[in-house]
Amino acid sequence: MPTERQSLIMLFGATGDLATRKLYPALFQLYKKGNIRSHFALIGTSRQKLTDEKFRDLVSKSIENDVTDKKQGSDFASHFYYIAHDVTNLAHYSVLKDKADELDKKYKLGGNRVFYISMAPNFFGTVAKDLKTQHVLSEGPGFNRLVIEKPFGRDYESAKALNDALSASFEENQIFRIDHYLGKEMIQNIEAVRFGNTIFEALWNNRYIDNIQITLAEKLGVEERAGYYDNSGALRDMVQNHIMQIVSLLAMEQPVAFKDTDIRAEKVKALRSLRVYNVADAATNFVRGQYASNGAEKEYRREDGVPADSNTETFVAGKLLFDNYRWSGTPFYIRTGKKLADKFTRVDVVFKKPLVDIFAFPQNGSTPLNANVLTIYVEPTQGFSIVVNAKNNASGFQTEPVNLTYLEDAKRTKETPQPYERLIHDVLKGDGTNFASWPEVANAWKFVDQIRRVWDIQQPMFPNYIPGSMGPVAADELLARDHREWVYKLNQ
Amino acid sequence: MPTERQSLIMLFGATGDLATRKLYPALFQLYKKGNIRSHFALIGTSRQKLTDEKFRDLVSKSIENDVTDKKQGSDFASHFYYIAHDVTNLAHYSVLKDKADELDKKYKLGGNRVFYISMAPNFFGTVAKDLKTQHVLSEGPGFNRLVIEKPFGRDYESAKALNDALSASFEENQIFRIDHYLGKEMIQNIEAVRFGNTIFEALWNNRYIDNIQITLAEKLGVEERAGYYDNSGALRDMVQNHIMQIVSLLAMEQPVAFKDTDIRAEKVKALRSLRVYNVADAATNFVRGQYASNGAEKEYRREDGVPADSNTETFVAGKLLFDNYRWSGTPFYIRTGKKLADKFTRVDVVFKKPLVDIFAFPQNGSTPLNANVLTIYVEPTQGFSIVVNAKNNASGFQTEPVNLTYLEDAKRTKETPQPYERLIHDVLKGDGTNFASWPEVANAWKFVDQIRRVWDIQQPMFPNYIPGSMGPVAADELLARDHREWVYKLNQ
Repeated sequence: MPTERQSLIMLFGATGDLATRKLYPALFQLYKKGNIRSHFALIGTSRQKLTDEKFRDLVSKSIENDVTDKKQGSDFASHFYYIAHDVTNLAHYSVLKDKADELDKKYKLGGNRVFYISMAPNFFGTVAKDLKTQHVLSEGPGFNRLVIEKPFGRDYESAKALNDALSASFEENQIFRIDHYLGKEMIQNIEAVRFGNTIFEALWNNRYIDNIQITLAEKLGVEERAGYYDNSGALRDMVQNHIMQIVSLLAMEQPVAFKDTDIRAEKVKALRSLRVYNVADAATNFVRGQYASNGAEKEYRREDGVPADSNTETFVAGKLLFDNYRWSGTPFYIRTGKKLADKFTRVDVVFKKPLVDIFAFPQNGSTPLNANVLTIYVEPTQGFSIVVNAKNNASGFQTEPVNLTYLEDAKRTKETPQPYERLIHDVLKGDGTNFASWPEVANAWKFVDQIRRVWDIQQPMFPNYIPGSMGPVAADELLARDHREWVYKLNQ
Repeated sequence: MPTERQSLIMLFGATGDLATRKLYPALFQLYKKGNIRSHFALIGTSRQKLTDEKFRDLVSKSIENDVTDKKQGSDFASHFYYIAHDVTNLAHYSVLKDKADELDKKYKLGGNRVFYISMAPNFFGTVAKDLKTQHVLSEGPGFNRLVIEKPFGRDYESAKALNDALSASFEENQIFRIDHYLGKEMIQNIEAVRFGNTIFEALWNNRYIDNIQITLAEKLGVEERAGYYDNSGALRDMVQNHIMQIVSLLAMEQPVAFKDTDIRAEKVKALRSLRVYNVADAATNFVRGQYASNGAEKEYRREDGVPADSNTETFVAGKLLFDNYRWSGTPFYIRTGKKLADKFTRVDVVFKKPLVDIFAFPQNGSTPLNANVLTIYVEPTQGFSIVVNAKNNASGFQTEPVNLTYLEDAKRTKETPQPYERLIHDVLKGDGTNFASWPEVANAWKFVDQIRRVWDIQQPMFPNYIPGSMGPVAADELLARDHREWVYKLNQ
């Protein structure tokens, strides 16, 4: 029997896309599993005027595919309340406070409050401040926690200003910065694989690992997000948060214990060891791209809402270097982009080739030994594989690479809790393991800002890659220069 | 296009079971693949009187399942000649010599001769001696090679006497001692896996490997071999040769080059580092068993040809220790037996458990981390697997072992050259890699003799295991005493 978590959830942006697509279904899963049950209530707010009834209809609709027991569905929806709210109108906050106090009594919530801000980032600071000044925060027993969605700033300066604003009302350990990649099963699995296996942890350093590759590939273009996206670009939208988080999980030292404070401490140490590039190195070690037309599909600059002269990158590849004993000399190569060959996320850990190849006789037709590669398949398929050199069954002695694999079947993947279910559950438990702490965010911005700085003063040659490819040629050249290549290539 | 190997093969025991079941089909495969073609001939001998015609009928029958092209089958058989031969009658050897010279001319064999002795072991020495004294050996250009089947002695003394007899006529590098396990695909793969993979070679020592387990399990009982078997037992029949060879491939240092002399040198070094037990340690570290009846099947002592008071072991388990820097403290556990649960051969390399288990919180229901295990599946299925601890997809953070596997499909396994095809091909090439050298055989006997010595003076409690089990309870206790267990257990 799971422990039921008592809490009021106050959601800003309750009629938005994220709320209906992700949050309500996630809460319903937690409800079905008993992680929340009688002692929870949600106050939804947004500018729209809605009755509780209409709001509950919206919630019910968003979970309709997951409902197996009608009564359970309507019981769940009965915990939802709605208050129209203009975040700039202080008077509105006391209405929220009264409702929160009322529901706290009604559902016996123990004074626990989660404030979930899922709205335009320019309101993050205001809302956080006013929640405190207008006494919406729980002042008795119980916790106050703040959940905020990305983007957390658009550079170090703006992120710091935002963080200062939040800090006026919430302690760092009360702030849960959502990075939904950290809610993904296989990203969480990085820690299990690294610290749960002698055979990997013993090899997890620059003596045995030649390089690590991280690919977050999308098949779609910008779609409806063009306005936001063009103002952001792949570096801010994917690299600063998701990729830097994955990199830090792969690079960090072993945490003293498996808990949020210890893990965060190691991630911060890793990010602080990441070499922040000077202008010349930033220009050399990072590659940007923007997708062209392939005839059938529009080029980025002709997408609705994108300026015809946009220099926003829809693709990034880069080389990251750590200046510490574990990783010095072992680069991390990262890439992400839109309109690529396929939609997938994977991590390839490329081990050094055997120091000698005692099987390489020209006369026996042996191919050179492959590097061992551990691949972590994050999505859509979940699993692992390891490339091992074995003897093939020809009559002589020739080696060939074979793939040892564990791939989850689709059924189990489907049963895996979705990121938002995990992350909201973590918030209710007060477990910050899978959220980005401020020092992590700050260091990631400092790294990314240097790349941005160079790009902002240089004119890119856009568009420069074709939809369905794996990005611009320069992304391959980035590795070729180091006598390496991407493990995942097209036409494999 | 494979290189055709020229050679006369003179086979002693040409009407025997091994010849018809294994050797002729193996030669036919080599013929089909062009490894032998026009320039080969075989003289079969045995006591039986046969015409060439009848002998060729016997050969044709033995390959009938593999013939796809009738003409090819009869062309192949036309290379076979028969001479009845009493090995104790010196006059007979000159008939062999004349026939060999005649066929050498006819088929242009370049003076190359392979003498293959597949008969009762007491004749090995005589035949080898007389082949030389009666000038059957090629005296012009070309090679002379001797192939002998097991058993190579029944203890160190008799093996040495046999080897001395062979050495009078053949140099060590002309003697090919067959151990058909060394012809198996996955046994040969041990070297590819060890020396072709950074991730294994880096871990292949007592810092990372907790223990190595080798199991050669048979489902059948002694069947028609009871007479021979009862005089031998599992220790001599399986451990001294097959298991000691597998152990030495797993334990040896990297050979300077991948060729027979270098590999043999390392195998001998490994076997010389194997601790030869004193009486007390032999009694403690080895376990023997003899199968009982399970109602439906007879106990060993009631098999035809087995004395009712036989103390011959049909099962052995043991612990082997190497006194060198690589393996000190990492035992090799071995076991083999008849009438066990299933027929299979496998090697389990058990790595040390992670030094810490940072995921083990009582409250999250995590099971303790498993040891990583690399399993080499030798037969019947061919392949590898690695046990890796991963996160399971429950909502908390719990680890569970998953299996990364590469298992060959049955079709490919079927296409894999059989041991005798490989080994005869090696003989024709003059490659001794997959044969046991005398120093290996000698050291293996010295180790095994110590076990035998203790067993010969102690009365066993036989029978002591049930058909369909994995041997006597003492085999499990052998590991339990060291706080370990067999990776392969019943009911998995």
